[in-house]
Amino acid sequence: MIHITRREHFNAAHKLHNANWSEEKNNEIFGKCSNPNWHGHNYLLYVTVKGNVNSDTGYSVNLKDLSLIIRKHITDKLDHKNLNLDVDFMKGIMPSTENVAIAIWKELLPHVNNLDCKLHCVKLFETENNYVEYFGE
Amino acid sequence: MIHITRREHFNAAHKLHNANWSEEKNNEIFGKCSNPNWHGHNYLLYVTVKGNVNSDTGYSVNLKDLSLIIRKHITDKLDHKNLNLDVDFMKGIMPSTENVAIAIWKELLPHVNNLDCKLHCVKLFETENNYVEYFGE
Amino acid sequence: MIHITRREHFNAAHKLHNANWSEEKNNEIFGKCSNPNWHGHNYLLYVTVKGNVNSDTGYSVNLKDLSLIIRKHITDKLDHKNLNLDVDFMKGIMPSTENVAIAIWKELLPHVNNLDCKLHCVKLFETENNYVEYFGE
Amino acid sequence: MIHITRREHFNAAHKLHNANWSEEKNNEIFGKCSNPNWHGHNYLLYVTVKGNVNSDTGYSVNLKDLSLIIRKHITDKLDHKNLNLDVDFMKGIMPSTENVAIAIWKELLPHVNNLDCKLHCVKLFETENNYVEYFGE
Amino acid sequence: MIHITRREHFNAAHKLHNANWSEEKNNEIFGKCSNPNWHGHNYLLYVTVKGNVNSDTGYSVNLKDLSLIIRKHITDKLDHKNLNLDVDFMKGIMPSTENVAIAIWKELLPHVNNLDCKLHCVKLFETENNYVEYFGE
Amino acid sequence: MIHITRREHFNAAHKLHNANWSEEKNNEIFGKCSNPNWHGHNYLLYVTVKGNVNSDTGYSVNLKDLSLIIRKHITDKLDHKNLNLDVDFMKGIMPSTENVAIAIWKELLPHVNNLDCKLHCVKLFETENNYVEYFGE
Repeated sequence: MIHITRREHFNAAHKLHNANWSEEKNNEIFGKCSNPNWHGHNYLLYVTVKGNVNSDTGYSVNLKDLSLIIRKHITDKLDHKNLNLDVDFMKGIMPSTENVAIAIWKELLPHVNNLDCKLHCVKLFETENNYVEYFGE
Repeated sequence: MIHITRREHFNAAHKLHNANWSEEKNNEIFGKCSNPNWHGHNYLLYVTVKGNVNSDTGYSVNLKDLSLIIRKHITDKLDHKNLNLDVDFMKGIMPSTENVAIAIWKELLPHVNNLDCKLHCVKLFETENNYVEYFGE
Repeated sequence: MIHITRREHFNAAHKLHNANWSEEKNNEIFGKCSNPNWHGHNYLLYVTVKGNVNSDTGYSVNLKDLSLIIRKHITDKLDHKNLNLDVDFMKGIMPSTENVAIAIWKELLPHVNNLDCKLHCVKLFETENNYVEYFGE
Repeated sequence: MIHITRREHFNAAHKLHNANWSEEKNNEIFGKCSNPNWHGHNYLLYVTVKGNVNSDTGYSVNLKDLSLIIRKHITDKLDHKNLNLDVDFMKGIMPSTENVAIAIWKELLPHVNNLDCKLHCVKLFETENNYVEYFGE
Repeated sequence: MIHITRREHFNAAHKLHNANWSEEKNNEIFGKCSNPNWHGHNYLLYVTVKGNVNSDTGYSVNLKDLSLIIRKHITDKLDHKNLNLDVDFMKGIMPSTENVAIAIWKELLPHVNNLDCKLHCVKLFETENNYVEYFGE
Repeated sequence: MIHITRREHFNAAHKLHNANWSEEKNNEIFGKCSNPNWHGHNYLLYVTVKGNVNSDTGYSVNLKDLSLIIRKHITDKLDHKNLNLDVDFMKGIMPSTENVAIAIWKELLPHVNNLDCKLHCVKLFETENNYVEYFGE
């Protein structure tokens, strides 16, 4: 059993704003992240899967396949997009780093399961100072 | 004479779109950078000044002073903002990396001149793969 | 349940020296780290906490709060200081990377507990080649 | 109990090629990694051990000792070498990142056991986008 | 006039060996870089061009165009290749970092000239500790 | 003519303090950098030389030779040392980043001149946010 990780990235706009709250409360909780005209980040996404090493290939998973899945189902949908407005699987979800990571996990899970390995971790950097890790539970 | 550089950063949204062009032409030239709902970046800003070393301090410039100027006049106005909509000194300017760097130079120049050193270079990373340098002419 | 990490940093002096040992033995064990006139590092500190995602905010913890706690209780006390001489919570403790990380854990724990999340890991880089991780036991 | 990690590196050539397969199948599975004339990488190796902190030294392990072991038994044998042809402990092993990490684990294990700590993880970066982690089982 | 830089990368094998010299002299000058079975690197390539900013686009050059040129004429020919054996424009050239950078400059020059900007610098990292810069003369 | 750069590093303690000034003025100018018990940094040093490419070697300079000179004359004297107290070529010099870079230039110059290339730049990072460059005049 070995863990293998692929890094991908996407550059996106978002804002953190709760429509049920006053502007005052939005500002108190979210600060400058609630700027109505959006802001954005260069997100770095690390997807870790685990599996056994195939004796013919030396691979636990073919990273070309894993990369294609991440690009098709995740980063092609997030890159140069607005996380609040443009992404089907983020509709109605506050685009905090936590929620983006969890949404990515849910989207990736069925596709990774087809690869003969198990999804282990989605790690998402919003900046070099902030990141989250989600392990599926 | 020595060159000294201070790194600061800001996270912002923008889009590249020319209102005089058709959507087709905007898409041809700017591609996904013209997404109407914006996208964003973690920008890294390197400001280089040059000056002589003061024999009492060993400093060419006090980086506390340089950092304060950059934050007050530049990054406080750009961080968690929309470069097309929110920034006084970017009004009417296409927020390409080139134009953002040139606008930063113009804003910084009078304040750096007050520091007894000369502004040498504004270097701006949009991503780890793309950056521009402006030397004032 | 999600893990979220905040990076902070501090620049400090220290030396590794056991007063119960001969200089010869100090030199054998600690080498150049025992230089009597000190040396120093740019330390990078990663604090990971875990918690559930709040449905109103999308946050497991508000990183502004976590950052303030780390700065007030840890990095403001360590930054531009001597780890052997200047830090109340390091008195009498050999400032190896291991011991600094453990001391940081102990200082942070009660404050993180007030944030409705659990302290998971203190990760401390002394250089880009050396780091420790402490999980509290 | 604390985890401590040492980073080392090596620059090596390799190719991924299964002699039991047709060229067509090698190309389908390994793509450009099967180039007959080799390619290469700057590998980054992170070795993590765990142990208790010694009260006299503040160390869980003396990183000088750990670094010497890694260099003598691993990176001196891999650096500026061909992983398919030049390395005694890689003979007959497909040099995928997974297999290189597992082989490094096996070589390091008896030597780390002599250090009064336990080998916890071998983490190997082939590029900044790809890495594996092996925990010994 | 502004400078703009695009980063690309390639992973390649090579060796440094002068066929006119004895093995002893090759080893004395090139050391482990002359290993007959090759070694390799993850090369990072920074191409800097300079030009005026177009008032319609805000661009000095469209980085999509620059990136396509670099990939088509340079990195597609170098990536996962052997620099001594596989590259048409490196035939008969010792693949030192210096010579690879100069060869890249010569290949890029006519194509960059077609982009309405001037090639300013080819910067090539062989490792994070070693890089060269070539300015065309 | 090509520029080639070698990166080395050293970890050192220092403080910025002018003995001719009151503590109040030292604190006003140098702030926490004047802590009497020192602080420290992981310094990164980039030494750039320029020269012509030798047709037998493909080298402008043999980086082994350049690295040995930097280590022998610079980093072996600075690493794990106190820049105010321990370094012969820093005696009586305020160890600001500017002054350390200039002192390194002066020490390196005669040794680089022996290598059949010219010293072009000493670039010294004190932190990832601050660096200086000295070109010898």
